[in-house]
Amino acid sequence: MRSREIRKYAVSSIPPCYSKAVIPGKISPDLLRRLVYPHLTTRPDVLVAAGIGQDSAVLDFGPHACIITCDPITGARRELGRLAVHVACNDVAATGAEPVALLLTLLLPPGSGEAELELIMREAGETAVALGVAIVGGHTEVTPRVTDIVAVVTAVGRAESGGYLHAGGARPGDALLVSKAAAIEGTAILAADLAGELAGRVAPEVLARARRFMDEVSVLSEGRAAVRAGATAMHDVTEGGVLTAVWELAEASGLGVELWADAVPVRQETTAICRALGVDPLRLIGSGALLVASGDPDRTLAALAGAGVPGTRIGTMRAAGRVVRRDGREEVLVPPARDELWRILEEVNGPA
Amino acid sequence: MRSREIRKYAVSSIPPCYSKAVIPGKISPDLLRRLVYPHLTTRPDVLVAAGIGQDSAVLDFGPHACIITCDPITGARRELGRLAVHVACNDVAATGAEPVALLLTLLLPPGSGEAELELIMREAGETAVALGVAIVGGHTEVTPRVTDIVAVVTAVGRAESGGYLHAGGARPGDALLVSKAAAIEGTAILAADLAGELAGRVAPEVLARARRFMDEVSVLSEGRAAVRAGATAMHDVTEGGVLTAVWELAEASGLGVELWADAVPVRQETTAICRALGVDPLRLIGSGALLVASGDPDRTLAALAGAGVPGTRIGTMRAAGRVVRRDGREEVLVPPARDELWRILEEVNGPA
Repeated sequence: MRSREIRKYAVSSIPPCYSKAVIPGKISPDLLRRLVYPHLTTRPDVLVAAGIGQDSAVLDFGPHACIITCDPITGARRELGRLAVHVACNDVAATGAEPVALLLTLLLPPGSGEAELELIMREAGETAVALGVAIVGGHTEVTPRVTDIVAVVTAVGRAESGGYLHAGGARPGDALLVSKAAAIEGTAILAADLAGELAGRVAPEVLARARRFMDEVSVLSEGRAAVRAGATAMHDVTEGGVLTAVWELAEASGLGVELWADAVPVRQETTAICRALGVDPLRLIGSGALLVASGDPDRTLAALAGAGVPGTRIGTMRAAGRVVRRDGREEVLVPPARDELWRILEEVNGPA
Repeated sequence: MRSREIRKYAVSSIPPCYSKAVIPGKISPDLLRRLVYPHLTTRPDVLVAAGIGQDSAVLDFGPHACIITCDPITGARRELGRLAVHVACNDVAATGAEPVALLLTLLLPPGSGEAELELIMREAGETAVALGVAIVGGHTEVTPRVTDIVAVVTAVGRAESGGYLHAGGARPGDALLVSKAAAIEGTAILAADLAGELAGRVAPEVLARARRFMDEVSVLSEGRAAVRAGATAMHDVTEGGVLTAVWELAEASGLGVELWADAVPVRQETTAICRALGVDPLRLIGSGALLVASGDPDRTLAALAGAGVPGTRIGTMRAAGRVVRRDGREEVLVPPARDELWRILEEVNGPA
């Protein structure tokens, strides 16, 4: 938790112009495989390491497993503290482990105000208390290396040894379930950020309800319930929506999948807002939904219901071939594309 | 390990202009106390939480303790991957725990090259292998929110329950020890980055030796040795040098301290370079040195020697009053000031 900002010597060993540029955005699966994964390292007490769709790593701590995950938040300002806590805890929740502690690193651009910092911290603290997780440290720094606030959150979870899942555990024949509905987070963001564009096309009371979807972005309840009731693998829906998350779960498990797109629950408010904007809700950022592969879907769905979280069967894991059935047609399920939110915000606001 | 870069809605709840600006650099102890610490949260299984001089937090994992720490590196480009791994592992080493795993988050500005990313990852991987620690995940993203590479490293360590130290454990009367020497890291940086300014004032063979000091920035060996031999508290020297680290250790322990500045080992190479540039080696960034408070200094120093690491007694912890004896005078030991490296690089290169 110490700053290294004083190492300002700016000589790069390899000038960027001599190597192929990496395109903006999250690094592609291809580049991860070529440039990043070959340099990851391991040791015998690493039980689960990084990979496509594997958002958390797991370490052997004797009778316990230690789950760790790390998420940067490089764009948000509105509700940054709250999102930071939820995003990291959701990754732990997707293993069925209990989120224990967070480290919050905040990098602020010069000119940032004290009130801004305090607001982020207050939101983070309140959200952590609500989830029962502790913010135990981090780092706070004002640095010209960022042009807007960047948060990086680390979450640590604990499970009984063997009492956790990861995204790579699905088996052929498992049912594929989803909790709540598609695009919960994206619906809330669009309702708040594009309120002007939506006025007159979506009723004010629908927009008001949609904005409150942000209260449902945690998947802790369903994660806890599903891990005890037949689940074999879990993965939280985030960028790229349900379609991307399903592809990632299949990739992490080395399997195929058949996704019944018409079965994916989409709430009225989401449908109204997405239709008005020409957005595909299944490709829209969707924290609040947890994908669950299960060998015993009735038991898993009953456990979700018992936790007060609706769950729906949306497909089947299979040995090979990734397809999506939609409107009676079967198409190939392709790897992550750009999230709908990116596209629509750029259409409305111009390039970021 | 998911990106949130798509949340580009730019409305801040509190415009910066309405609140007092936070000055650039690591946030001051005063602001941490006012704006950040009040919002940290805890739970019964948090054994050590964040605080001044507390670089790692500790969580209860039954028979084990789980040590977590997080460091942003917001300036370095040269040897970034290597430094990132060392900096995080040193924080874990300062608890005497075994570093187990790292999460590496890399945020790259648009235009970054593939070769640059690969170099950082290769260096990080090689350093991790050398230290026996696993890089188990992270996140890699190109984002316009950074103007130069930003790395954030999370390290997780494991210790037997009760078998770790933290910076707050020193007791009045404990001897204060330091491993190796002051300003090891800063000496290497200055020798490399100000080679032009130093040519003709410091012999080339001295500069060559100084640059190789970068091979000694790890404090894993001394941390492991000291925790088993009488140490009560440890803290690694980083920004602000030995003087800052001593103040922070006293602050974390709620104690006074008497520092014998003339006893602090300073290598010939460091003296030559610092004299040529007018730099105080005791206020110069100093990874490679570990501060150790010990109730049994002879035993602790013997353990360090047994691990092949020189150690030196440089003072005494006391109940109150923080003083530094230097050149026969006694002065008040003041809280962290700006590192000498910042100042001298700005003098030579102009403001960053």
